[in-house]
Amino acid sequence: KEQAKWSKETLALWEKYGVGESDDKEAIQKSFIRHVTTTLARSMFNIDNFSAYQATAHTVRDRLIQRWNDTQQTYTEVDPKRVYYLSLEFLLGRSLDNALLNLGLKESCGGFRMEDILDQEVDAALGNGGLGRLAACYMDSLASLDYPAWGYGLRYTYGIFQQRLKDGYQVEFPDYWLNFDNPWELPRLDIVIDVQFCGSVSRYTDENERVRHVWEGTEIVQAIAYDVPIPGYGTKNCINIRLWSSKPERQFDLNRFNEGQYEQAVQEQMKAENITAVLYPNDNHMVGKELRLKQQYFWVAANTHPTLAIVELQRILVDLEGLDWDDAWGIVTRTFAFTNHTILPEAMERWPVPMVSYLLPRHMQIIFDINLFFLQKVEKAYPNDREMLAKLSIIEESSPQFVRMAHLAIVGSHRVNGIFKDFVGFYGDKKFENKTNGITPRRWLHQANPKLSNLITEALGNKDWLKNLYLLKGLEKCVGDKTFRKRWVTVKHSNKVRLADYINKCTGINVNPNALFDVQVKRIHEYKRQFMNILSVIHRYNILKKMDTKERAKAVPRVVIFGGKAAPGYYIAKLVIKLINSVAQVVNKDISIENTLKVVFIPDYNVSVAEIIIPASDISQHISTAGTEASGTSNMKFVLNGGLILGTVDGANIEIHEEIGDDNIFMFGHLADRVDDLRHAHRYRNVPMDPALQAIVNDIESGHFGDSRIFAPLINTLTHGKDYYLISDDFESYLNAQNLVDEAYKDQEGWSKKSILCAANMGKFSSEEREDNF
Amino acid sequence: KEQAKWSKETLALWEKYGVGESDDKEAIQKSFIRHVTTTLARSMFNIDNFSAYQATAHTVRDRLIQRWNDTQQTYTEVDPKRVYYLSLEFLLGRSLDNALLNLGLKESCGGFRMEDILDQEVDAALGNGGLGRLAACYMDSLASLDYPAWGYGLRYTYGIFQQRLKDGYQVEFPDYWLNFDNPWELPRLDIVIDVQFCGSVSRYTDENERVRHVWEGTEIVQAIAYDVPIPGYGTKNCINIRLWSSKPERQFDLNRFNEGQYEQAVQEQMKAENITAVLYPNDNHMVGKELRLKQQYFWVAANTHPTLAIVELQRILVDLEGLDWDDAWGIVTRTFAFTNHTILPEAMERWPVPMVSYLLPRHMQIIFDINLFFLQKVEKAYPNDREMLAKLSIIEESSPQFVRMAHLAIVGSHRVNGIFKDFVGFYGDKKFENKTNGITPRRWLHQANPKLSNLITEALGNKDWLKNLYLLKGLEKCVGDKTFRKRWVTVKHSNKVRLADYINKCTGINVNPNALFDVQVKRIHEYKRQFMNILSVIHRYNILKKMDTKERAKAVPRVVIFGGKAAPGYYIAKLVIKLINSVAQVVNKDISIENTLKVVFIPDYNVSVAEIIIPASDISQHISTAGTEASGTSNMKFVLNGGLILGTVDGANIEIHEEIGDDNIFMFGHLADRVDDLRHAHRYRNVPMDPALQAIVNDIESGHFGDSRIFAPLINTLTHGKDYYLISDDFESYLNAQNLVDEAYKDQEGWSKKSILCAANMGKFSSEEREDNF
Repeated sequence: KEQAKWSKETLALWEKYGVGESDDKEAIQKSFIRHVTTTLARSMFNIDNFSAYQATAHTVRDRLIQRWNDTQQTYTEVDPKRVYYLSLEFLLGRSLDNALLNLGLKESCGGFRMEDILDQEVDAALGNGGLGRLAACYMDSLASLDYPAWGYGLRYTYGIFQQRLKDGYQVEFPDYWLNFDNPWELPRLDIVIDVQFCGSVSRYTDENERVRHVWEGTEIVQAIAYDVPIPGYGTKNCINIRLWSSKPERQFDLNRFNEGQYEQAVQEQMKAENITAVLYPNDNHMVGKELRLKQQYFWVAANTHPTLAIVELQRILVDLEGLDWDDAWGIVTRTFAFTNHTILPEAMERWPVPMVSYLLPRHMQIIFDINLFFLQKVEKAYPNDREMLAKLSIIEESSPQFVRMAHLAIVGSHRVNGIFKDFVGFYGDKKFENKTNGITPRRWLHQANPKLSNLITEALGNKDWLKNLYLLKGLEKCVGDKTFRKRWVTVKHSNKVRLADYINKCTGINVNPNALFDVQVKRIHEYKRQFMNILSVIHRYNILKKMDTKERAKAVPRVVIFGGKAAPGYYIAKLVIKLINSVAQVVNKDISIENTLKVVFIPDYNVSVAEIIIPASDISQHISTAGTEASGTSNMKFVLNGGLILGTVDGANIEIHEEIGDDNIFMFGHLADRVDDLRHAHRYRNVPMDPALQAIVNDIESGHFGDSRIFAPLINTLTHGKDYYLISDDFESYLNAQNLVDEAYKDQEGWSKKSILCAANMGKFSSEEREDNF
Repeated sequence: KEQAKWSKETLALWEKYGVGESDDKEAIQKSFIRHVTTTLARSMFNIDNFSAYQATAHTVRDRLIQRWNDTQQTYTEVDPKRVYYLSLEFLLGRSLDNALLNLGLKESCGGFRMEDILDQEVDAALGNGGLGRLAACYMDSLASLDYPAWGYGLRYTYGIFQQRLKDGYQVEFPDYWLNFDNPWELPRLDIVIDVQFCGSVSRYTDENERVRHVWEGTEIVQAIAYDVPIPGYGTKNCINIRLWSSKPERQFDLNRFNEGQYEQAVQEQMKAENITAVLYPNDNHMVGKELRLKQQYFWVAANTHPTLAIVELQRILVDLEGLDWDDAWGIVTRTFAFTNHTILPEAMERWPVPMVSYLLPRHMQIIFDINLFFLQKVEKAYPNDREMLAKLSIIEESSPQFVRMAHLAIVGSHRVNGIFKDFVGFYGDKKFENKTNGITPRRWLHQANPKLSNLITEALGNKDWLKNLYLLKGLEKCVGDKTFRKRWVTVKHSNKVRLADYINKCTGINVNPNALFDVQVKRIHEYKRQFMNILSVIHRYNILKKMDTKERAKAVPRVVIFGGKAAPGYYIAKLVIKLINSVAQVVNKDISIENTLKVVFIPDYNVSVAEIIIPASDISQHISTAGTEASGTSNMKFVLNGGLILGTVDGANIEIHEEIGDDNIFMFGHLADRVDDLRHAHRYRNVPMDPALQAIVNDIESGHFGDSRIFAPLINTLTHGKDYYLISDDFESYLNAQNLVDEAYKDQEGWSKKSILCAANMGKFSSEEREDNF
């Protein structure tokens, strides 16, 4: 675009006024007032908490942008090698508190009850769960470590759905997060990328007698950029996440505009906008939808990335830049690294070949070529081993054929984070690794748990631990200090009071902060076994009911807290929610058990709610069937806040266990190497159900928790479903572990020591630590 | 909402910083730089004209909002009787230049080429034509006259379509005016009104034994407010237009949310947003669409207004406030005044009773009751006159029945602007009047024609004429001043050069600024007779072709300029555009006529384009069939800029004629009282076509202007269509008038005198003048 012209006077003015705004308290207050009166067009008599939030956010945004501008200009000048973090999901949550902290502005803001103001912000929920939140933690850490990093994602008009409960069932509502002014994004309306779909491929021979391909006659959708500044902690570095929004190209369907078809024409144009309308609310689940593929390619064409990005870069290098296939492929494989986020076979992405051929015809050709050259090498390594060829092939030879996206990513990357046995045999070890993920201690301790953060800073003498989490080790020396332990427990208690208030506010249920808070919050999924948890709650309830008052007085009172969304089409997961709420309804109003047990399902679990729940947990459950959880990071957040874990030998539980030792974690269940045998037994032999489990099932079927027909499909997963997730096999050891938790909690001094030791040994799990290892 | 709490220190800060920003040049520049760096997140090395526009707009917006805030607070304190201007259309055009002028900031802004910056703004085109622009002019004048006024309208996501030409045909494109940040609106996201639809009505008897009605089980859509500040000229008064945007109520369709239907669910919710998605691109045309009725009621329920507002207010008073029917009806009729904007019978709004019953069941009951009580009175006045009852009834007794909205408005208002013969007989004269509309001289002269504005100010000694347009009368004394006349002509010429540049830029056609510029810009409609104009152009072309070079040298060279949109479904109007372009293609490339004639169709006529065209016109055509134009104001704009009129005895031509006298206007054609007879003759007798017209029709049919079959439907309107708009009857006198124009233009001195006298006598047509009369 035409650069505007500048006079000398104007240049002088820029020098005078272009320096930006100061961070001192008075300047902040002045900005705040200016934003109220001008940005919001309000007067001082007309400010509610939401407009106070908006004005504060804009005040902070002004300063955030200054850093962002300076950082990006420095990058342009220095031109360092950059890191790109590519993800279809960024689960950022709220931004104001984080920005206040990282910009060091927290002290300068006042005049309102900051909590009320922070509470006005809507979560940016552009992700389903772990994968999306991991991306957000990593971006925070990349910024704090002064990396010149950029993230790339999609700006969904509707983030992950809002979850509400109706008669105990999950009901989904659209998440209108953009309905209110979003101060945390910078629209870059002049940055527009054309993205092609459909059309056809034609061949020609170029002047060097080389066969070339052109992709033409395509439909075009435009990608428009929105930048989200991510400030680092303890640094001026402010990095960027670029989110793409889809818009129709203006010329999009000229031919479809006919006399009188104006309204349909507008609708046609709106279709293009649908590409970034909705985040697919599926976690660890394959979505076989054309729109989902369009989303991926749309985002790929606006950026570059595994898995489709491998093909896209090859296409650009070969078709547009005119490189030889092999030279191009060398660049591609040196460019990409691939991290796999699931180990469930059914969650691996596969696209039908006919669909890819229709939407991305040239890409499909390239995929076939990549596969051909790859399989030729496999054939050399394993002559005549047709089974191996079929196993490794990028194309699954079913009907229709499918593209195995994970295989494509492995073949096209120089490094793979994840375990793929067959490929290790072919490529050797070096290409593969299995890294632990990490979390940012700023959001998950300093911001979510300010009291504990202060206590730790006091104990360690400074805040350095926020950037070097290994310094938490220094807390070990405080374990013997009774006063310290008391303060530690007091902090936990006040966080439990805060959560109890929140529970009361959003569910109406009263819970006792002195009870043991037992938390399982995460996406609802059969492999994560919330079902097993609620079954054990029924068991506990039945035992408590049978006790006399004396016995019951000795029992540890417990509040079992659930939270999490089920994919809208995941019937069984939604039934688990219904069962939890049905059990809660019976248990919570049963006065005979004298408040020794409460069950709570907190609706609409998201990042902000997690920030309230996690600091308040005594024990949290991470009880996936062994071998199913790729990593998981929520367990790290709980332990960092002094919460203990009840878990299976799965995912990051294993590494946490290594760090904190046997005494500070409750582990149970079969190991991963037993799973295949156990499943085989369920399938081909008549394995009787665990007797305690059978009693609970009978209890449900007797109608104690409402019409049992409702729960039949759920019970069927244990019987006709052959108990795929091995609830029966693990049940006994699970109940035993639960008993150990109760016993340990009775020893409050001992528990507080465990709690401190847990937090003290979490250094390894900082997302900074993980990134420096990458 | 909870009011935020203030400390003493904070109050002191507000006193210090809440005063707002200064208007001096340095403060403006500082604001500009601040908006570039923070609001836009750009640096000085990264400013194009669009971002310079944005930063300037935000700088002006800050100051606009201060006035708006002060004005609205003053209203709250003083609580004067207010004026509400209610319209489904506000055709505001651009805002920056107007705001700079009215705020007196024009001098303080510099550093960029202001024209380039102003040119970046997208028109706010929330209207079709005259009716919408009238609303905008009136709001400007109400602000300038210090009225405590508010406008109410709808915030369409897409304004009137963008018109482009393809092969001479109109093609419609959506108007994405909100795609880029809109600094001229203040989102009032906390002002949300629930609007009900459908459902049912139930009756009950209240504690006073009165029958009451409840409207229940309704679907709810929410109206969210956006405020648009309208600054007055020469005053600090800054009034407001509140535009409503539709959003789904969150609980909207709880029952339709089922497992797995998440995407459909989101779409369902999006339906609610459709209500304010598109402005109906029909001018003077009935739209029989459910969505259009929904739009009206949506807007009515967010505000109050004729015609549905009459029913809504009655409903509120009777059903919700519990008033007696007669008391309520007294308030209703004292509240509303009704202005009718069309006199074409086919343009009168009628809604099918079954549709109203479905969407607004309670309203339909109330309409029947209003009609019953009204007809009882009619029956008393005209006993046994069934024909009169049928004529006046609010319900048209066809199948299905229709609600005649104009009748409802007449019955429900205390004053009616418009002529309804039958109702005058019943109500008497007093209730009816027929007011001339007006225009704002700030936009249509000062802003659109700065050179003429300066010349006038110089001649009159000051700018007072901008607020009291009668002062233009003072120009009459300059008519004899040759130097002044020369300067007057020079201004016109430079405006013609500006238009010639614009024509070249957007059509590629070169036109000679020394030719007579003959303009017809307005919606394309049969009754406005652009068809007659282009037919006369063919006539002129044929005459010029027959001339020898000598004769042609004496002919007045002419540029015939058309502009205007056709409703997308209005086939005949779109054919007129095609014919204009087909004729233009033949004429413009015919070198044999030596540039004595050019034909131009300027695409996408809108407010901003009008601001370029109108000051450049020598003659403009307002040639509607007598008795069809309710008023029209574009003729006023042309005359105010020293352009002469070629027109029929119709609409505001009549009053302009009264003001400027016979010598300064070219009028022709049959009078309105002849129309019925002429139509009757066409229908029942064999009236031969005017011979000149017949020759032109033959010319078209011979294929001189492309495949004649294309134009057959258009020609048919003259033959089989019985020439409803009387082109044949008026054609001879039209051609004569055209000749008189040519002759007059040859006398350039005489023409300049006419031009000055035109402008000098436009005092009556200021929109201020009109409002003070209301």
